[in-house]
Order: sequence, then structure tokens, then C-alpha cells
Amino acid sequence: MVFKFGLPLAVLLASAAPALAAPAASSGVSPAVKVLHENLIVLDTHFDTPANAAVPGFDIRARHEVSDGSQVDYPRMVEGGVDGGFFVIFTPQGARGPAANAANRDLALQRALVIHKLVARNSDLFALATKAEDAETISKAGKRFAYISIENSAPLAGDLTLMKTFYDMGVRMMGPIHFANNDLGDSATDPKGPEFGGLSPLGKSFVAEANRLGVLLDASHSSDLVLDQMLALSKAPIILSHTGAKAIYNHPRNIDDDRLRALAAKGGVIQINAFTGYMMDVPKIPERDAALLELTKAYGSPRDVPADRREAYKAARAAIDAKYPLPRATLNDLMKHILHAAKVAGKDHIGISGDFDGGGGIEGFDDVSDFPALTERLVKAGFTKEDLAKFWGGNALRVLQEADRLKGS
Amino acid sequence: MVFKFGLPLAVLLASAAPALAAPAASSGVSPAVKVLHENLIVLDTHFDTPANAAVPGFDIRARHEVSDGSQVDYPRMVEGGVDGGFFVIFTPQGARGPAANAANRDLALQRALVIHKLVARNSDLFALATKAEDAETISKAGKRFAYISIENSAPLAGDLTLMKTFYDMGVRMMGPIHFANNDLGDSATDPKGPEFGGLSPLGKSFVAEANRLGVLLDASHSSDLVLDQMLALSKAPIILSHTGAKAIYNHPRNIDDDRLRALAAKGGVIQINAFTGYMMDVPKIPERDAALLELTKAYGSPRDVPADRREAYKAARAAIDAKYPLPRATLNDLMKHILHAAKVAGKDHIGISGDFDGGGGIEGFDDVSDFPALTERLVKAGFTKEDLAKFWGGNALRVLQEADRLKGS
Repeated sequence: MVFKFGLPLAVLLASAAPALAAPAASSGVSPAVKVLHENLIVLDTHFDTPANAAVPGFDIRARHEVSDGSQVDYPRMVEGGVDGGFFVIFTPQGARGPAANAANRDLALQRALVIHKLVARNSDLFALATKAEDAETISKAGKRFAYISIENSAPLAGDLTLMKTFYDMGVRMMGPIHFANNDLGDSATDPKGPEFGGLSPLGKSFVAEANRLGVLLDASHSSDLVLDQMLALSKAPIILSHTGAKAIYNHPRNIDDDRLRALAAKGGVIQINAFTGYMMDVPKIPERDAALLELTKAYGSPRDVPADRREAYKAARAAIDAKYPLPRATLNDLMKHILHAAKVAGKDHIGISGDFDGGGGIEGFDDVSDFPALTERLVKAGFTKEDLAKFWGGNALRVLQEADRLKGS
Repeated sequence: MVFKFGLPLAVLLASAAPALAAPAASSGVSPAVKVLHENLIVLDTHFDTPANAAVPGFDIRARHEVSDGSQVDYPRMVEGGVDGGFFVIFTPQGARGPAANAANRDLALQRALVIHKLVARNSDLFALATKAEDAETISKAGKRFAYISIENSAPLAGDLTLMKTFYDMGVRMMGPIHFANNDLGDSATDPKGPEFGGLSPLGKSFVAEANRLGVLLDASHSSDLVLDQMLALSKAPIILSHTGAKAIYNHPRNIDDDRLRALAAKGGVIQINAFTGYMMDVPKIPERDAALLELTKAYGSPRDVPADRREAYKAARAAIDAKYPLPRATLNDLMKHILHAAKVAGKDHIGISGDFDGGGGIEGFDDVSDFPALTERLVKAGFTKEDLAKFWGGNALRVLQEADRLKGS
């Protein structure tokens, strides 16, 4: 088992995206499935799209290609029958200490501003959502809904009163930890290994404050022991906003069956992740990584390549992919995770996330326009419309509502 | 000398606005003056409009009346040839201490968000400005410019690293203190009198950090000794964003001639304020205040009166004004302050602010549509086009540029 942690995020993103946009998998979807899909409230619990929205010139109203480094925009949400999602405030885990805390806080506030401006500038197409019922209300009004979440809560670690600050800014889901350990607790993937044996004392206060505010706790990226402790401490069900099943592929970012059952017993939900590196063995090709690093040095992050250099960039990327091809997970792999989680956790406890614009995307499920293709696979697997209503949004919205209902000290 | 400090802000606002909108004073402005005025970059350094923008339903694209509790909107900016201004993050000075600091920080961040959303939602009409030259660039692009300022910096007092947070959010002018003393220093109008004899030690750090960031310091509302110390400590010129001349009307919110000269010697600027309570004796009529308080209890703040109760509210307000009339300052009074400040400080050191949407507005200069009427008075007083270019924006933009030019530790 090899995964790419340790490379710069830009390289990770470059590595995850295919050289050329795959043909839209949804083009072969039957009309009946399309109608069924359109009639559901469909959401994704982890859109890293604010990272794109922060790039000057990015226009969510324009149709992009995956090879542009974009998997979510308005035209493709419409194509894919995707009604909304959780737009993530992500800041990378870096240094720790007072100066880093202030800098991280400021980066997270900037990202919150980006999301609010994105919605305000496109208020004819999008609306901010904070309550579970907003998803339906906004959809009925003909707009797409945008919930706000935080992936790495290091920006709050210097001062937990900032949790209310971000709550007031509309954040309704928070994950304490990302790729590396931080002051709140241990990551699933820190190469240095665990530091606290789960949550730090501050991390336990974080859980209590999330409960008090009515913020849904997200254990994706947290270590197994953090998950256990969150399940034990939290008064409300918790979510794994983008995580796979360890029984299908043994990776620290995935969850084992006992924990899957414990999550469900608590009323929680796992949103199955579509991220190749967490779904199959991906060989490490140092020459490929070196070439991608050179590419990034030459062009910057894929998100930032200016329009007049984009074609040259794409050609250089395609050449690297041709010279050092990597396998990619497929819809078959994704279905294995979903079917397993449905069996172990139960149909009230699963959902789906592409981890789009954050390194996610697999063959056949590579941007938001591909959602109907997965619906077709789920229908063929025997799931009913009622099941799909839960998987595509109902279950996630239920835990969001529970976190709010159980709030208060 | 009587002033209304001590009343709730809602009553202050209600008291300051006339019962019925005065006829537009600019209707009698000569075509030549209108052309001259239109050719200038015209700004106001203190728009409390974000307080209106925070009220659900407020639409800056719609034309309001002064009696609606609004003095600034897009249609009246166009009518008044007003190209932009400083949109203020205002939070009232309340309790002090850690809990209050966090709450104030959050309120100020919310207000920053309101301003960014206002601009984003109306990005065809407005653009955010951060550099002095943005005023011209944005005007030439056919939009109105919005700088962001902070009036009361108590929200930053718990953690001065927040100054950079707000700088990153576009804030380019900060006043440390408002109606009451806070942790940064003494107010001009705290009924308890001075607490520090000027700036506190924290206030001195605030001045240094503003210099480092390149934020223009605003001494309006600060005590005279705070002004003296800011002039002594600051590496950059400072501004009084909305203040009058003490020689014309002796009020602690106004500035005496020696300080006016010291401000100018440092390269700074006074923006003459159009606020009746700081321009003339206003009798205190307890019955009027009691009636306005009742009105506020019945209808809420003038900003918040819902549309279906607005006519009833206006009638009730008109009845109070008829029963307990108050004198209002006029353009003649405003001209006295301007002429005096021009004589004492010099024409490179004055400008104008209506303190609109924050209790300002006088007879004949009551909302942004009235700016040409004041230009006409200034032309009649003998000021040239070059003088007016300075008064209406050039001087304020110069000190803004200086604060930026001199930044760095």
C-alpha cells in the first residue's frame, strides 16, 4: 500500500487529475434513472471548490473541464443533477504555535469570505444554507445550496471562541484534523505517528463546543482513536464526510467494520469517498513525482495556471501521464465500498462524496456531472428510490439536523 | 452645550433624522456647478451604511428616503455625483474583558462580511478599494468604490493580531475609540472622563501596528490627548474622518485650532462633519426623548421597521417632531466649520463627511444626493476646482496613500 502523502498538495492534485477529460459517464444513463435522479435532493458533503473560487478569474458560472483542475461548477452541477453541497474551508496543516494560529485563523477567515462572496456574486444561482431544511427550500426556489464546513480546525485551535465566530459565519460542520496531527489531536496519516493517543484535552473541549453550538462533527482524516473518542464524547451523531471502508482497502484514511457499526449505532453517517489513493494500491513512481514537481515549478499549481499557458500545461501533463501512467480507481471500486458500508452500517448510515476539487475523482465519477452514472449503478445494484434519497442527501441532512437539535450545553 | 450621548443609538438616529424628507437641495444647483462636481472624484470618509446593509431586505440599488433611516444608496450616490466612500465597520462600545472582546471581534467580522457581500452582490455597480489609486481606477470603470474602515477598534483590543486579519479583509482606516473609553484609550465623550490620559499602552501598540501595516489612523471620537499622542507616535499622517472645529462650536468631539495646525503640520486631514449635535446647542427635551424611546420600543430601530409598518412609523415620528421640534444645523453652519478649518489648517488638509447613516445630516445636506448643493456653496465662497478636488477626495486619498507608502516596521 502506497499513498502520496508527503508531496506538495499541488502535485497531489496534478497527480490525481487525468490528463484528458474522460467522456461524460452520464451520457449513457437511461432516461428513467435521470428522472429518478433529478427528483432527489442530491448533495456532496465535501466540495473543495472554495480553493478554486479563491483563484482570481475563476467563474463558477462557466463550464470547466477536469483537466482545468476543476470538478465542480454551476453548469456541471446542473448536468449532474447536483443540488448543493458542503463548501469546505480548507487550510493546510503547517507550523504550530501562537504565530501559526493567528496566520491559520486569518487564512480560514479569508476562505470563509471567498465562499460568502461566491454565493453573493451568484445569488441568482446559489444560496447559503445553514439548517437541514434549507436544502429543500433552496432547491425548490430553483437555486443550488451551499453549506459551509471546515476540514482542518487548526485555525481555531489558538482560541476555541473562534468556533462561534465561524458558526456565526455559517459553518455547520467541522473536522478537527487533516493530514497531520495538530493541537486538537492525531491525524490518520501523520508520518510521525500519534501524538496524543486520540484527541488532545483541547480537542475534547472542541467536541464539547461543537455540541454546544450545534455543529456537526466530522471525523474524516482523524485517527481511529480520535473517532472512538468523538463517538464516546459527542452528544450528537457524527459524520465521516469523505472516507472509505477499510475492509475493501486497508488504508489509515478508511474505517474498519467495528467502527462503522459504532458510528451507525450512534446515528452517524459515512460518506463514501471517491479518491483513488484511498481505494487501491497506487505504485510510487519517483520519476513521475519528480516530473510533476518540475511541472508545478514551471506552471504553479494546476488551479493557478493562467489561461494563455493552459494548453501548454495540459500538453506537458498529458506527456507525463503517457510516460508514467498510474492506475485509477473505477466505479466498480467505488461500488464495492458503498455496498460494503451499506451492509455493515445499514442504509440509514451511508452517503457519497467525490472529494472533488480536493484530489478526488475516479474513472467514471470524475466531476459533478457524473453523479447520474453512479445513480444508475446503484439502481442496478437493487437500491430503491427511497434508498437513494437517503444516500444522496437524506442521511447527511439527518445528522446535520440532529447536531442542531441536540445543541446546547 | 447639550448633546445626546447616553441615549440608545436607535434614539440618536431617530432624533437626528427629520420627520419628512427635505426637498432635494441640489435641485437648485447651477448646470456649471453640476458639471464641475461630476468631473471630480467625490468621496465621503464615513458612511455608516453597512449598518443598513446588515438589515435583511435592505437593497442599496433602491432609492430610499431620509425618513426611511437611509442617507446612502446607489441611486442617490449617482444623483449626488458621489463616487465612493469609506464603509464603516461599527460596533458599539459595551462591556470590556475577554468575553466582550470575543463578542466584539465576531460582530466586527460579521460587519466586514456584510460589506463584502454588499459589494459582491452588486459587483456591477460597486468595487472594493484598498489603494488610494483604486478610487480613480474604479470610477473610470463606471463603478462606485468602497473602502472599508473601522470606527471603534475595541473588537481588536483582545488580540492586536486581528489588525492584520482586518487589513487582509481590506480595512485601510482604523479609529481606536468611539463614544466611550476602551482598552486602547480615552474617548472624547465618555461621561466618566479620561481613564488613561490618552492612549493606553495597548493603544500605543495599536498605533505602531497600524503604521506597520499601512493602515490610516483616524482620531475622530478620540480624546484630545489621544490625538496628541497619535500625532507624536505615528510615522504617517493621520485623519479625522468626521470631526468639526472647536472654534466654531465648543464640543469635545471637535478639534481646537492648535491641534488643527498640528494635524496639518504632520500632513494630516480633517474631514468636516455634518452632525447637528456637534455643530450647535440642541436643547434637551426629556419628553421628546421619552417619546422617541417609546417609538423605538414600539417599532424597533428605524433601520429595522418592516415595510408594512413603515408608514405608521413615519406618521408617529412626524407627530413627535411636530410636538417637540428641535433645531437643526444648516449648510451655513457647515460652511462656517469648513471655512475656519481651511483658514487654520490650509486647503491641503480639509475634506467633508456627512456621517451619513450614523446620525449625521443637516438641513440642506441630508443625504448623498445633496453633495452638489455643498459644492455650489463652496464655489460661491471662492474655492477653485483644484480646491474642490482636494476637499472632496484628493486630500483624504493623499493621507491614505501616505499611510501605505510609509508602512513597514
